[in-house]
Amino acid sequence: MAKNLSALDSALDSMGVDGFLIDAASSDPDQLYLSGFDAPDAFTTLYANGVHLLVSSLEYGRAKKESDAETVTRTSEYDYYEKIAEYGPEGAENRILVEFLSDRGVESVAVPTRFPVGIADGLRDAGVSVTPEETAVITEIRATKTDEEIEHVRVAQKANEVSMRAAEDLLSAATVENGILHHDGEVLISERVKEEIEVTLLRHGAALDETIVACGSDAADPHNRGSGPLKANEAIIVDIFPRDKASKYHADMTRTFVKGEPSDKIRARYNLTHEAFDAALEAVEPGVTGEEVHDAVCDVYENAGYETLRSDPNTETGFIHSTGHGIGLDVHEYPKVSPAGGELKPGHVITIEPGLYDPEVGGVRIEDLVVVTEDGYENLTDYPIELVVG
Amino acid sequence: MAKNLSALDSALDSMGVDGFLIDAASSDPDQLYLSGFDAPDAFTTLYANGVHLLVSSLEYGRAKKESDAETVTRTSEYDYYEKIAEYGPEGAENRILVEFLSDRGVESVAVPTRFPVGIADGLRDAGVSVTPEETAVITEIRATKTDEEIEHVRVAQKANEVSMRAAEDLLSAATVENGILHHDGEVLISERVKEEIEVTLLRHGAALDETIVACGSDAADPHNRGSGPLKANEAIIVDIFPRDKASKYHADMTRTFVKGEPSDKIRARYNLTHEAFDAALEAVEPGVTGEEVHDAVCDVYENAGYETLRSDPNTETGFIHSTGHGIGLDVHEYPKVSPAGGELKPGHVITIEPGLYDPEVGGVRIEDLVVVTEDGYENLTDYPIELVVG
Repeated sequence: MAKNLSALDSALDSMGVDGFLIDAASSDPDQLYLSGFDAPDAFTTLYANGVHLLVSSLEYGRAKKESDAETVTRTSEYDYYEKIAEYGPEGAENRILVEFLSDRGVESVAVPTRFPVGIADGLRDAGVSVTPEETAVITEIRATKTDEEIEHVRVAQKANEVSMRAAEDLLSAATVENGILHHDGEVLISERVKEEIEVTLLRHGAALDETIVACGSDAADPHNRGSGPLKANEAIIVDIFPRDKASKYHADMTRTFVKGEPSDKIRARYNLTHEAFDAALEAVEPGVTGEEVHDAVCDVYENAGYETLRSDPNTETGFIHSTGHGIGLDVHEYPKVSPAGGELKPGHVITIEPGLYDPEVGGVRIEDLVVVTEDGYENLTDYPIELVVG
Repeated sequence: MAKNLSALDSALDSMGVDGFLIDAASSDPDQLYLSGFDAPDAFTTLYANGVHLLVSSLEYGRAKKESDAETVTRTSEYDYYEKIAEYGPEGAENRILVEFLSDRGVESVAVPTRFPVGIADGLRDAGVSVTPEETAVITEIRATKTDEEIEHVRVAQKANEVSMRAAEDLLSAATVENGILHHDGEVLISERVKEEIEVTLLRHGAALDETIVACGSDAADPHNRGSGPLKANEAIIVDIFPRDKASKYHADMTRTFVKGEPSDKIRARYNLTHEAFDAALEAVEPGVTGEEVHDAVCDVYENAGYETLRSDPNTETGFIHSTGHGIGLDVHEYPKVSPAGGELKPGHVITIEPGLYDPEVGGVRIEDLVVVTEDGYENLTDYPIELVVG
C-alpha cells in the first residue's frame, strides 16, 4: 500500500497552482513524508507530476538511492559555484530554484505556511506565484497510515514496552526508607528512572527527546516532566514517547505505578480511569468521530462526579486534557481525539489516554496506542495495566 | 559576561527597521540564543528595546521563569479564543502578532531568511514591513562565546571524553578472528560501538543524533557514518559530536584507532596528520584568520606530497575537507576554519580536525576542540592521541 497523495492533487487543483513546494530538512515530518529522504540540512521537494528533489552535491548520491523521488537534481547542474561568485550563496540558491521550476513548467506553487520568506520573496521577484496553503494537506494525508507505517509504529511500541518494563523493574527493585524510594544505596530520583528508560530504548533502536516520570503533585500537572525523589504510596506517572531511529516513527504509552500501598483515593481514581479507558476503546471504530471517543471518557468521569474540560472549561482538576492524538512521524499529529476530532478512518493510529489530576491526590493516566481497522481497532500495545508494583 | 547584542542593534539601525522578529521553536539555535527559552513548539521573540516573548498560555509560566526576556506576553491576553472563533487559528495568531507589535510601536521588522512566509504575508497585509536579513546577524554574534558558554562546551567535551574512552575500551577488549574484531562471542560491528558511545553519553547527561565509527574504505569517505564488521589492522575513525542535554551546547572530538598492526602507509598518514594538527594549533591566536589556520594544514600535507582541495579543488583523495568549524548551540557554526575563514577572536570555540583519505588505504583524522584566548588558545580536550589500541 503506497502513499495516497490524491488529496494533494485535489488541493492543488482547487488552488489553481502548478505544484507544491517544500524547503526544509527531514526534521519536518511533511518533508520526510513527501520526499522519503532523511537529510539533516534543508533541501527542496517539488510535487508536480510526481516528486522531484533539488539537493546539494553532497546529498545527491544518497538522495538518488534512498528517496522516493522520481527525479533528483543537484544544484551544481545549475552552475552553482558561478552563481555564488556572482550573487552570493542565497542569491545563487534562489536563481537555481527559479530555473529548476521553470524547467518543469511550474509558474505557481502552493507552500506550507512555514515556508521560508526569503525564498518566497526570491521566487515572487522572479515572477513565480507563491501561495501559503490554507490547510496543511500533507499533514492531513499523513494521518492515514499504510501497512508499512503501522508496522513502523508497532516496532517502536515494542521497544517502548521493554523500556516501560525496565522502569517498572527499577521501581520494583527499590526499597523504601522514610517514605522515599531508594536503589543501590541512593535515593531513587525521577531522573535515574528516565535514564534507565532512555538507555533501554537505545539498546532497542529507539530514542527520545523527553519522557515523563512524575510523582505526587508533580504528576497532577500533565505537562510536568517530573524530577527529584520518588515517594512510596504515591502515584508515579511514567509516559514514554520514543522514536524508532531507523524508521523515524513514534510510539507512546503511559502507565501509573504505586510502590507500596495506594490510598483509597488513588485506587478509586485509577480504577475509574481504567473504566474510562475501556469505554474509549469500546467506542473506537471507523465512522465514529474523535469527539465521540472523547465524550465516552467524559461520560465516565462526569457520571462519577469528576470535572472534565467538557463540564467546566476552566477546571484545573479532574480530566484536563484530550483523550488522545494521532501519532506517526510526529508525536502529536492528526487525527485529534478531542472535542475537535473528526471521523476516524481505517489506518488512523491514535493514543487513548484518559487521566485524572488533583494536586491534593496526584495524577493517574493510562495510555495505549491503537490502529483503527475496517471493523474496529487493533491495540498495538502489550503491557499489563496494574497499579501496584511488586 | 552577558550576551553582546550590539551587532544586532547596528544591523537594525542600518536596515532602518524597528525590531528583529523570530518565530521558531528552540530547536532553532538563534531563537534559543536570543530568547534564552527552550520550548518544543514555535513561539515569537521580538527584539526591540530588549527581548520580548509572545507565547501560548501553556508556556507562559515557564517562559516568565526561565527565559531571558524582559517581558513575556501570552496569546490569551489578546482574546485568542474569540479571535480563533472569528478567524481560525492562523488568522487569530496573525492578528495577535500585529497587535503585539503595534503595542510596542513596531511598524517594521527584520526577520531571518527562514521566517515563515505565512506569518510574513499576514504582517505585510496588515501594513507591517517585513525584510529578510542579508546576513544572519545572530548566527554571527553566537560565534563569540561568553565564559558561561565556554563552560557549557567544556562540560559537553568531558562527557565526550568518557564516551571516547568507552569506545576505545570496547576495541581494546575485542579479540581478532580471521581479521575481524569480535566481542562477547559476536562479530563487533560499528553499530555496537556507536551504541556504547551513546549509552555512555546518556549516563553523563549528553545525547547525540549521529556518530561516526567508520572502518577501512568506509572511513575514506568523511561523510560515511560507518556500518558493519570492524577489521583488524585497518584504521577506524571515531568522531563523536554530542550535545549536553541541559545546556544544549555541543562538543566534538575525533580519534583514529587501529586494533592490531597498522600498515606503514596508515602509520605514515597518521603521523603526518598529527603533524598537521600540531601546525594548525600552533597557528591559532586572535587576529589570525581561519584561512591561515587551514593553510598551515595544507602546507604540511602538500609538502609531504598529498593533494588538498587547495592544490586540486577536484581531488577525491588526500585532505578533502575544511580544517575545522565553530561549535556551540549548533554542531557547525561560525567561525569557519577553511578557505572562507575570517579573523579569529577571543571566545571563538573551534575544532581542529585535519585528515587524510584514500579508498585504497582508509581514512585517518585527529580532532580536538579549542577556545581562542587573548594570547592564543586553550585546548578543551583531554584525550591521548595514539593510533594503536591495546
